[in-house]
Amino acid sequence: MTETQGGHSPSRRALIGWGGAGLALGAAAAGGAVAMTRAGQDADPAAAEAGTAVGFHGAHQAGIATPVQDRLHFAAFDVKTDDRAAFVRLLKDWTAAARRMTAGGTVGAGAYGGLAEAPPDDTGEALGLRPSRLTLTVGFGPSLFDRFGLADRRPASLVDLPKFPGDNLDRARTGGDLCVQACADDPQVAVHAIRNLARIGFGKVAVRWSQLGFGKTSSTTPDAQTPRNLFGFKDGTRNIAGTETDRLSRFVWVGDGDGPAWMTGGSYLVARRIRMNIETWDRTSLQEQEDVFGRDKGEGAPAGKPKEHDEPFLKAMKPTAHVRLAHPDANDGVTILRRGYSFTDGTDGLGRLDAGLFFLAYQRDPRTGFIPLQRRLAASDALNEYIQHVGSAVFAIPPGVRDADDWWGRTLLTEEA
Amino acid sequence: MTETQGGHSPSRRALIGWGGAGLALGAAAAGGAVAMTRAGQDADPAAAEAGTAVGFHGAHQAGIATPVQDRLHFAAFDVKTDDRAAFVRLLKDWTAAARRMTAGGTVGAGAYGGLAEAPPDDTGEALGLRPSRLTLTVGFGPSLFDRFGLADRRPASLVDLPKFPGDNLDRARTGGDLCVQACADDPQVAVHAIRNLARIGFGKVAVRWSQLGFGKTSSTTPDAQTPRNLFGFKDGTRNIAGTETDRLSRFVWVGDGDGPAWMTGGSYLVARRIRMNIETWDRTSLQEQEDVFGRDKGEGAPAGKPKEHDEPFLKAMKPTAHVRLAHPDANDGVTILRRGYSFTDGTDGLGRLDAGLFFLAYQRDPRTGFIPLQRRLAASDALNEYIQHVGSAVFAIPPGVRDADDWWGRTLLTEEA
Ligand code: HEM
Ligand code: HEM
Repeated sequence: MTETQGGHSPSRRALIGWGGAGLALGAAAAGGAVAMTRAGQDADPAAAEAGTAVGFHGAHQAGIATPVQDRLHFAAFDVKTDDRAAFVRLLKDWTAAARRMTAGGTVGAGAYGGLAEAPPDDTGEALGLRPSRLTLTVGFGPSLFDRFGLADRRPASLVDLPKFPGDNLDRARTGGDLCVQACADDPQVAVHAIRNLARIGFGKVAVRWSQLGFGKTSSTTPDAQTPRNLFGFKDGTRNIAGTETDRLSRFVWVGDGDGPAWMTGGSYLVARRIRMNIETWDRTSLQEQEDVFGRDKGEGAPAGKPKEHDEPFLKAMKPTAHVRLAHPDANDGVTILRRGYSFTDGTDGLGRLDAGLFFLAYQRDPRTGFIPLQRRLAASDALNEYIQHVGSAVFAIPPGVRDADDWWGRTLLTEEA
Repeated sequence: MTETQGGHSPSRRALIGWGGAGLALGAAAAGGAVAMTRAGQDADPAAAEAGTAVGFHGAHQAGIATPVQDRLHFAAFDVKTDDRAAFVRLLKDWTAAARRMTAGGTVGAGAYGGLAEAPPDDTGEALGLRPSRLTLTVGFGPSLFDRFGLADRRPASLVDLPKFPGDNLDRARTGGDLCVQACADDPQVAVHAIRNLARIGFGKVAVRWSQLGFGKTSSTTPDAQTPRNLFGFKDGTRNIAGTETDRLSRFVWVGDGDGPAWMTGGSYLVARRIRMNIETWDRTSLQEQEDVFGRDKGEGAPAGKPKEHDEPFLKAMKPTAHVRLAHPDANDGVTILRRGYSFTDGTDGLGRLDAGLFFLAYQRDPRTGFIPLQRRLAASDALNEYIQHVGSAVFAIPPGVRDADDWWGRTLLTEEA
């Protein structure tokens, strides 16, 4: 995906902030956005630099094929209004705010550029911070289609996920009418973005649940060092890189004729909060740990091979090994784009860290992506002894916002689409 | 404080890791530690560079006067053993592990350097990551002194905190026999450190509560840009800098004769989880927000002054302004070192983000530091309308670990001290 040039990076928020000029900012942010219309999907990932801005406009939303940023704040929202016009207004306002925030600007007139008698348009805690490759990705949950007369626009691909063996879902961390995934290299930038969208939505939407992810577990950047998950293993070795346009088209982007036209260029997101019983894992032998995944812990190489990126030889792995079961060759080619983050949310009241993987997978259709894969894993994966799925949601991710006049969800909510 | 030279930084963990050689690592980590004995307190903060290691040894523990790192993982532990020798063994093991982890190494024989039939000594998720200025700071809570025959060694300064007006403390986030503060520029490094200490302590201690802080709110580095808290205000403008050895001695370090000799060179930590009602705040006018603090939002300047670092003129502020009430001139000179972090822990079940400030204050004596200050604030601070204290703990922070033979708590637990 296209990163903007370094010029945007150093202290745009600060620059805009100190001037206190909401209007100047408006122009700057809009200009920035226009300059970035090559958008978030297929540029050189080597160009990804921590402080820069990621283009907001494009055929696909940014935050999917974009090289994975370091931190995540994810929120699922419930809709609180039955007024379709108000909902459309919200999506337009969210888009405008997202366009500015991803460019490194503030919302509206900023944190102190407005009237002293009014609440500021921006909450201010990201002033002085860099754009930090912030991306904001919006999605629509199945329950949204029960509202606003949208029932017949619900894509067949947007199924309710079945209950898988071993699921122990907490309703308070499950579902949602809408979602926003905020990824950035600075967590304060991601938290600021979600919080300001929640604020803009006050009275129309309310946060149902949210999740902070402190460390990425996957990489969509081919040459980057593969991050490690909380079990200490490299995670994301085999994934779809943001540069692989062919595989993205085959496995991630909704194509023409895949379903309703309004989803063309979009994708489907499955989010699962997976608790990892790290205390149990930590008392397990190295051999058992490596058998569970079918890879070695140090190098991350598949069983029997010397190097991380060597082609896995599945038969060298135990039949219950995670990689053996999850590999496309064992699943009629099923391939998903993983983009998860590790989390730690304090303790569980039993002296154990409440930690795990917030699993995020993008795919062209969950019915041929996550669902068959997870059925397989839920039935046989050796990993199941150490993990538990405790939260779950699925969202239709609409196509990207094309230009400064476009807005999130336009294709769904306007007749023409 | 003394940062080690750049040579340590690039990929010590990786270097050590890839070799797979637990023994080589042992030597490297020990060597590193020795090279760093000028320790974590009074060097040039400008030398602070994100990837480097902070010295572990010294008269004071690192993580107090050390320039504030970006991220925090804090854990309070309950002791589960009555065996004093086992507890001493644990403190020695923790010290050894901390020495290695802060130098950028792994625990023991590493994540895959040991026997295949045994659980690895290190959980592995920080392999390949840089030292990231990790500091580990240990503390002893009042309840620890009910054990191990330590009752008569409890410092008079280590009082149980009184109940302040407005306190709404959750027992599950309050107290603790021990604490470990892990600060690092990479959250995965901080989380890894706490988790490995918890693992080493298995059966002897259990995590009572823990807190992830995603963004620092204070700076102990004079020239750094002041970070902003979740109310959008610069926080930490007036603080004790890590270079101010005189003020550190007056207000932070326990001096000779301040109490039991075993605490000389130590400090006292008050930790408060302060929930911020950000949704209410976000609907408050800019004027009211600025009146609440007595500073302006953009520049952070005290009321009536143009610049952030101008001397506050307290009478220009409302009588209930936070800064007017908290300023040393209004409190007979009371001064604390603040080192807090912003947190977001999902939602509260009412559609509101569960976010706030994890307030950490170091001082020579809480009876002349936090307690009188908080009495004042709890009684009159305009900020009280927007915050609530929901967790609380106090710890005696023993002096630093002097050298490779010393260990956390030695002065408390050996007769000679
Ligand atoms: C806490 C839960 C999980 C952990 C710790 C975990 C960890 C891993 C690890 C370490 C690898 C090997 C490195 C790599 O190629 O990325 C891997 C591969 C993979 N995992 Fe998972 N995973 C988890 C859950 C899941 C789930 C729920 C799914 C999908 C339903 C999944 C699908 C995959 C796939 C498709 C691969 C790549 C297989 C290949 O092409 O060789 N994982 N996972
Ligand atoms: C969520 C709760 C709090 C927030 C948002 C907050 C925020 C702030 C801000 C924005 C400042 C001005 C900038 C600066 O000098 O750092 C400040 C100053 C200060 N705060 Fe707080 N604070 C909170 C709680 C507390 C508590 C509990 C204490 C101590 C009991 C405290 C003690 C101080 C002190 C001593 C100063 C410096 C005053 C001066 O020397 O001018 N604060 N705080």
